[in-house]
Amino acid sequence: MPTATMKALRKAHPQQGAELEAIPLPKIAADEALVRVRAASICGTDLHIYHWDRWSASRIHPPMTFGHEFCGVVEKVGENPFGVKEGDFVSAEMHVNCSHCLQCRMGQFHICKNLRVIGVDQDGCFAEFVRIPVRNIWKIDPAIPEHYAAIMDPLGNAVHTVLSGEIAGRTVAVTGAGPIGLMAIAVAKACGCSTLFATEVNPHRRALAKKMGADEALDPAEGDVVRHVLDATDGHGVDVLLEMSGHPTAIHQGFQMLRAGGRASLLGVSSQPITFDLVSDIIFKGVTVLGIYGRKMFETWVQMTELLKAGKLNLEPLFRERMPLDRFADAFSLLEKGQASKILFYPNGSPE
Amino acid sequence: MPTATMKALRKAHPQQGAELEAIPLPKIAADEALVRVRAASICGTDLHIYHWDRWSASRIHPPMTFGHEFCGVVEKVGENPFGVKEGDFVSAEMHVNCSHCLQCRMGQFHICKNLRVIGVDQDGCFAEFVRIPVRNIWKIDPAIPEHYAAIMDPLGNAVHTVLSGEIAGRTVAVTGAGPIGLMAIAVAKACGCSTLFATEVNPHRRALAKKMGADEALDPAEGDVVRHVLDATDGHGVDVLLEMSGHPTAIHQGFQMLRAGGRASLLGVSSQPITFDLVSDIIFKGVTVLGIYGRKMFETWVQMTELLKAGKLNLEPLFRERMPLDRFADAFSLLEKGQASKILFYPNGSPE
Amino acid sequence: MPTATMKALRKAHPQQGAELEAIPLPKIAADEALVRVRAASICGTDLHIYHWDRWSASRIHPPMTFGHEFCGVVEKVGENPFGVKEGDFVSAEMHVNCSHCLQCRMGQFHICKNLRVIGVDQDGCFAEFVRIPVRNIWKIDPAIPEHYAAIMDPLGNAVHTVLSGEIAGRTVAVTGAGPIGLMAIAVAKACGCSTLFATEVNPHRRALAKKMGADEALDPAEGDVVRHVLDATDGHGVDVLLEMSGHPTAIHQGFQMLRAGGRASLLGVSSQPITFDLVSDIIFKGVTVLGIYGRKMFETWVQMTELLKAGKLNLEPLFRERMPLDRFADAFSLLEKGQASKILFYPNGSPE
Amino acid sequence: MPTATMKALRKAHPQQGAELEAIPLPKIAADEALVRVRAASICGTDLHIYHWDRWSASRIHPPMTFGHEFCGVVEKVGENPFGVKEGDFVSAEMHVNCSHCLQCRMGQFHICKNLRVIGVDQDGCFAEFVRIPVRNIWKIDPAIPEHYAAIMDPLGNAVHTVLSGEIAGRTVAVTGAGPIGLMAIAVAKACGCSTLFATEVNPHRRALAKKMGADEALDPAEGDVVRHVLDATDGHGVDVLLEMSGHPTAIHQGFQMLRAGGRASLLGVSSQPITFDLVSDIIFKGVTVLGIYGRKMFETWVQMTELLKAGKLNLEPLFRERMPLDRFADAFSLLEKGQASKILFYPNGSPE
Repeated sequence: MPTATMKALRKAHPQQGAELEAIPLPKIAADEALVRVRAASICGTDLHIYHWDRWSASRIHPPMTFGHEFCGVVEKVGENPFGVKEGDFVSAEMHVNCSHCLQCRMGQFHICKNLRVIGVDQDGCFAEFVRIPVRNIWKIDPAIPEHYAAIMDPLGNAVHTVLSGEIAGRTVAVTGAGPIGLMAIAVAKACGCSTLFATEVNPHRRALAKKMGADEALDPAEGDVVRHVLDATDGHGVDVLLEMSGHPTAIHQGFQMLRAGGRASLLGVSSQPITFDLVSDIIFKGVTVLGIYGRKMFETWVQMTELLKAGKLNLEPLFRERMPLDRFADAFSLLEKGQASKILFYPNGSPE
Repeated sequence: MPTATMKALRKAHPQQGAELEAIPLPKIAADEALVRVRAASICGTDLHIYHWDRWSASRIHPPMTFGHEFCGVVEKVGENPFGVKEGDFVSAEMHVNCSHCLQCRMGQFHICKNLRVIGVDQDGCFAEFVRIPVRNIWKIDPAIPEHYAAIMDPLGNAVHTVLSGEIAGRTVAVTGAGPIGLMAIAVAKACGCSTLFATEVNPHRRALAKKMGADEALDPAEGDVVRHVLDATDGHGVDVLLEMSGHPTAIHQGFQMLRAGGRASLLGVSSQPITFDLVSDIIFKGVTVLGIYGRKMFETWVQMTELLKAGKLNLEPLFRERMPLDRFADAFSLLEKGQASKILFYPNGSPE
Repeated sequence: MPTATMKALRKAHPQQGAELEAIPLPKIAADEALVRVRAASICGTDLHIYHWDRWSASRIHPPMTFGHEFCGVVEKVGENPFGVKEGDFVSAEMHVNCSHCLQCRMGQFHICKNLRVIGVDQDGCFAEFVRIPVRNIWKIDPAIPEHYAAIMDPLGNAVHTVLSGEIAGRTVAVTGAGPIGLMAIAVAKACGCSTLFATEVNPHRRALAKKMGADEALDPAEGDVVRHVLDATDGHGVDVLLEMSGHPTAIHQGFQMLRAGGRASLLGVSSQPITFDLVSDIIFKGVTVLGIYGRKMFETWVQMTELLKAGKLNLEPLFRERMPLDRFADAFSLLEKGQASKILFYPNGSPE
Repeated sequence: MPTATMKALRKAHPQQGAELEAIPLPKIAADEALVRVRAASICGTDLHIYHWDRWSASRIHPPMTFGHEFCGVVEKVGENPFGVKEGDFVSAEMHVNCSHCLQCRMGQFHICKNLRVIGVDQDGCFAEFVRIPVRNIWKIDPAIPEHYAAIMDPLGNAVHTVLSGEIAGRTVAVTGAGPIGLMAIAVAKACGCSTLFATEVNPHRRALAKKMGADEALDPAEGDVVRHVLDATDGHGVDVLLEMSGHPTAIHQGFQMLRAGGRASLLGVSSQPITFDLVSDIIFKGVTVLGIYGRKMFETWVQMTELLKAGKLNLEPLFRERMPLDRFADAFSLLEKGQASKILFYPNGSPE
């Protein structure tokens, strides 16, 4: 039985930083569960919130607890448990859809018009406990390791991006090898892609890209990466572009590397407008461009569970530090150095 | 039997204008047909060539005959006629693909890496006769009127654009009501779209848009057309954007009118780079963007033949003047006034 | 406020027939609504239940109220109304999915492993009031006529069948012109199909098929309908087969009429096993066969709402008698004569 | 320069058996190539021809040379070489399409209405030389081993079957582990499928199925394989059925193992009609059934080339004997024993 208060990492004020506070345990509604957080992982979005950038200032309403990647054990359920039981080991889809809008009616729940994000729009998982609607709970298959269970949110982004079109027997470019880009490399390779080119400015991440399965990890600052990829594909370009950087240069290079008739799946979030030569990049090439957001609810969760159960994905190179919640300052500082890695918090005690 | 020379509208010199000349009849290769042109229609591309704009100067090699929309009667075939016979009433796919590149191997012939366009890269149909590879000949079903047969090239663009995704029971915005935009309105309506909003600055074209079946024809210069469309769709936006203008404002408005999860098919050719807010226009909305070029070879030809045979398309409002080839100056002058209409040349004598 | 009891058409005993009884008003749960039935329509399934055939005997547990096609006005909602309000004019998806099974997780709610059908597995709408889960309520757009609202269940079957693949510019065969087959004809035509051949043994239904838009309504008992359709399609066969009969002969003829590479959507329920020459009917022809059940939740509801709002569907020829609930014996007797028509009950008083 | 005659394995008379004869070298037309056969592989179809079964008696016109799986070196090309050159190391698509029929116009060349098969309808590759239309020649990437190049025809069947729908993260049943079934197992695993169940009566083939990557290789004669697969998939059944046997029992079991909403791709050719419970096997389950024939021209060739180049497929367990053409009786005899293996002929001399 939980005590009356818990530790939580809070954005207490509308400014840079965060504070570890003792706050009351969340109260759950009839269709919610209370989950004791086992491990929580830090996302790029959490860094933005920590630093209180322009986006955060416009979206976040302090005081609030952030964090939206985690796994844990169900502590308590409400009156309508929807099959969720105390003791279940779970993760959760942190995007909560409205079920009413046109997108929800069309089965496109992940782009619901009224989407609320746990850890952004309401208290998240950088805490001992988190409150989750039971319909968003995802039970973890016993074959999946605990630390993998903590990063199913970003892994879902990667799986959604890769599997938004055909991938088997296709050549691929991944622009940007941050954590999700790196996962996308592993997923694409597991799903039968042929030659995969990654582009990434950070040498540490390029090394990781190779470890995750990239055939080549190219430095866009060195030589003409577009020329290189075109030459390596008989002048055609790759079949599939997975844009994971949000960086204007990478986006432009990505589209120039893409063959006519190819597919570009865009996940990377750019902080500025991007200028396209629509005609030569997209129209005359007959390209398909897919905006990718979140994860399909819950098709992507099924797919990644199956891939993980089948042992198709080795994500070990992504993991680095594991630490208690009170070392949050170290964690954010390490991540800022741009090393592609997932740091795990253990709010309820250290990992074995 | 044709005489030794024929009349042809020629871009004789790398400069504005055109000349009607007598030139030798084309000689056909083993796998080509000589077609006596019955009616030829003027495309926007022909206007660019006539005026010798920057694109023309870079692509066209005078002297050459232009024109790439037509119908006519087969006069002669080579040794490998591929089923084409003298006397066949035909039109033709004027994009000639290489059959060797990766796109051709994948069945995406319309975006062949080595595409050549008749009337652009070699002599076209503004002449008494035109030389066509037999594999590009399309026999016209007897149920299709002659003047419709002359515009199957642009109608194919419209059909390809509309049918590049789901359309039945979908709300639609068509940005730009030039000839192909107008055809797209008729096609979308024939294929079961629900409410269709057209945007167009030219009042004459707006009137035509209504005639072709648009539920509303909006003037972007007057009031907030984006707001209007959002309000008319319960705040969601339309399911499908058919971008037929190439104009930056129309493109931006189009994407703002498009609902999350919607489909944007882009055909309009813009003469300048377009700046996108990728995140809000495409990524977070989970939008599908399709670059559309030419017509599928020959799926689109089958589709439009069936739509025409079934009497689904009334294109009469699009047709205006019909004239002999020597009135070409009048024709180009009329078209520049921006009235959405197809003018037909009759190089071998006036229409009944 | 409803009175304490209501009239309901009941399968009281496990035998042929039905009884009109006064029973207590349904009690609704927190996530249910009580709907006052305005009009209810009789389905073929209701005939089976009435006659107590083998399927009914194995599935239905008397006493129960049957009926599953209706429209009405919300009388009362529970504590979690999910946006449903008293006074809303509504219909409902009568297939209630579990939200937990693999199909539900994949977004294929209509083929949920644990599907329950209102009017089959629990009390239905042949009554003054019916109890419906709020998530299954569909609000009727004011542009849709009341009697159309009463048949959205079978119309949804038709829309789901037609739009399960491409239809615009495709030739079509509809085998079986019962009520749903007739609706499918109207839907296919509204969505741009080209030549449509219907086959049907009942002359009354053949006449209706023509009224609904079939280009030809063929009698399989007279002449070789397969030969006829092949001849009318240059020997290729039709692009799309919509199998709406469940009859072995019709199924065989349908597959023989279908071209190589075509699509067969099967909705008709056959009461016996069907023998296929898999190799020549399906494998060597590279055919796609789609089993169709129910309606997509709720994509099909959106699509049919849009088609109806846009005035694309004239279903008037389908409607015949309208009667109070106590004339149920007349109603079932009329329907058995095999006339393709929808009979409407008005449990709360006669229609204006 | 070839000598005037060559050795060829001939079906000389309409009866069981074959004869090794010296026949004139094939004469090539303008759009054909003469290929010196390096290695040729025996297909099940060749066994049928050898034994002169009912199908052979109706289709084959002796005298003719059979064989349709091979690789070799281009010896000579005609006047229209279509990019094919002397010395090219090649395989070929042995299905020759007409380019004129509706399927060809729709890009579905592999199910052409007028398909001719080299080695069935005209002289094949069990000979020192074979004549091939240049458009059907497929140049072998240097990264692909010679013996793999000899079996790209059946490998293409397998790739076409597996990739006819989604496979990554899907559970799979493969019914029948003959050579193509075994290849399909390898391809499915390479393309990211999760748990894969094979069913096969022959113990030798079951062992191979495991070697190729099957998670379980089940004996349908022992225990209830349907029950086993359902239990292993939480009662749902598999996402994908790849039917490679053509055997009635396997087909029935396959459909019972398939989950609602699943995909069944049927390649196995059954020699008898198959009886379905359409309602429970296909309709109420909302299943998609795909007839699979041949290979997509040439998308499948691109896909398998990429998979082979990327080293995704280990097909070594499939290969057994390699022998000169004159040991054909031994070869056919070995294959009849039902051991899943590819035997290679070397008509121009023994392999190194």
